[in-house]
Amino acid sequence: MAIQQKVILYLISDSVGETAFNLAQAAMAQFPDIKPIYCRFPFVHTQEKLMRVLEQAKSDHAIVLHTLATEGLSEIIANYAEQNGLVQIDYIGPLISEVAHRTGLKQSHEAGAVHHLNEKYFDRISAMEFAVMYDDGKDPKGFLEADVVLLGVSRTSKTPLSLFLANRNIKVANLPLVPQAHIPDELWKVDPKKIIGLTNDPTVLNNIRRERMIAYGLNPDTTYSNMDQIREELEYANKLYKKLGCMVINVAHRSIEETATIIMEALNLEDYDYKTSK
Amino acid sequence: MAIQQKVILYLISDSVGETAFNLAQAAMAQFPDIKPIYCRFPFVHTQEKLMRVLEQAKSDHAIVLHTLATEGLSEIIANYAEQNGLVQIDYIGPLISEVAHRTGLKQSHEAGAVHHLNEKYFDRISAMEFAVMYDDGKDPKGFLEADVVLLGVSRTSKTPLSLFLANRNIKVANLPLVPQAHIPDELWKVDPKKIIGLTNDPTVLNNIRRERMIAYGLNPDTTYSNMDQIREELEYANKLYKKLGCMVINVAHRSIEETATIIMEALNLEDYDYKTSK
Repeated sequence: MAIQQKVILYLISDSVGETAFNLAQAAMAQFPDIKPIYCRFPFVHTQEKLMRVLEQAKSDHAIVLHTLATEGLSEIIANYAEQNGLVQIDYIGPLISEVAHRTGLKQSHEAGAVHHLNEKYFDRISAMEFAVMYDDGKDPKGFLEADVVLLGVSRTSKTPLSLFLANRNIKVANLPLVPQAHIPDELWKVDPKKIIGLTNDPTVLNNIRRERMIAYGLNPDTTYSNMDQIREELEYANKLYKKLGCMVINVAHRSIEETATIIMEALNLEDYDYKTSK
Repeated sequence: MAIQQKVILYLISDSVGETAFNLAQAAMAQFPDIKPIYCRFPFVHTQEKLMRVLEQAKSDHAIVLHTLATEGLSEIIANYAEQNGLVQIDYIGPLISEVAHRTGLKQSHEAGAVHHLNEKYFDRISAMEFAVMYDDGKDPKGFLEADVVLLGVSRTSKTPLSLFLANRNIKVANLPLVPQAHIPDELWKVDPKKIIGLTNDPTVLNNIRRERMIAYGLNPDTTYSNMDQIREELEYANKLYKKLGCMVINVAHRSIEETATIIMEALNLEDYDYKTSK
């Protein structure tokens, strides 16, 4: 029997509050039996607004999680929490204090500074548009411009993976592999280091494809979900990967985030270092 | 003159470490004059691996930020940090402790539990595929199945906004508005509450479109970037929005995240509450 426990989390931000929400989810994933109630309060910029949220938090006996850069607001929470026995966690304050201490610099106190509409931000939008434009082998010209070319048979998560990488400023084109179809000439001109061959376990693929057929209201036992057919497709794909000399990743038990991290690590694609301490 | 200060941040996770990285960026955005060096250590599962990272952190005089769920690892960091004068911030421990204390439950200690390949996860992938399939008015059937339909003239961030919302499990179709083009009949069958009309300031749009022409190696002063033309397009769009009775958002000075949050708040689209305390 699953125990249901009521945990109310207040997420307060002077910007969108996306990061605090993701972090809260990561922590709460440690308690699969709890279904937490998340209350998000984005764009809290003033003391008045904040005080109303805190009074509500008190009456809800909520845990308060916050990422507030606006001057004075995190201090208000700390004081209110101490006086009223409220539990609060400041997700950005400790790092800001430490950096200020080390460098002697003062924080800008600008809310949502990370969402600034700077050049990098527009690059990210371009990367997303690139991913949509060159999804599904739509235009082979994309292979030559892309930072990464993803190959894979149907249902190896090419599209969501392309979009996830795009969100990290990486230009991705992808090509679905079908044994009978022609491989565009452009692919052979791409540096094999930029190509990633996606593969999957036949049984996992069989399940996913059967489910997809059911979702479409069709008979699940089609050639699309046939095991021999799937094995043939995967064999075809693996032979092509060998011929191209590209890296191969099995996505069977990996989330998009995990596969994306492996790719970024292997290709050294971002403006920070991935380190693996072996 | 910008002061350059060296700040090295070690991000240690037993999963991907995406949330910690986002949070670190949010904090560091408070110091525009510092270009921090981020060193990411994903998939750290063992004491041996962790110890090597910590020794490296010590010699780099780094600030250690971590999201470790694997049993015993966060304690190792705390002890090592205390003995070696290392600064460390635990991004998930405080919330986990508080929840364990309130509920009497124990944490699962499973790494990357948030990335589990559960039903919701596959829904998200479906939503992403939906966004790509029904981007740019490709197929008007999408309007009837979508949770949100975005309308807007060229360069009002329809595509990135669709993808961002898809990442939150929301099915989005979008339609570019062009004064001469035919509006698909399906649009009039959609509940106007689900439709969002995007608009922009003419001068902002003029700048973006001129830059786009320059990026394409073309003369920036085309009809596409002409102010009269832009005003005409926006007027056409605004008239249509009025006729449809839909919500209108001006994206001129908003990031994708901000616009997406406004939409989710207005449509009450997620499985948690957005609260606005007025």
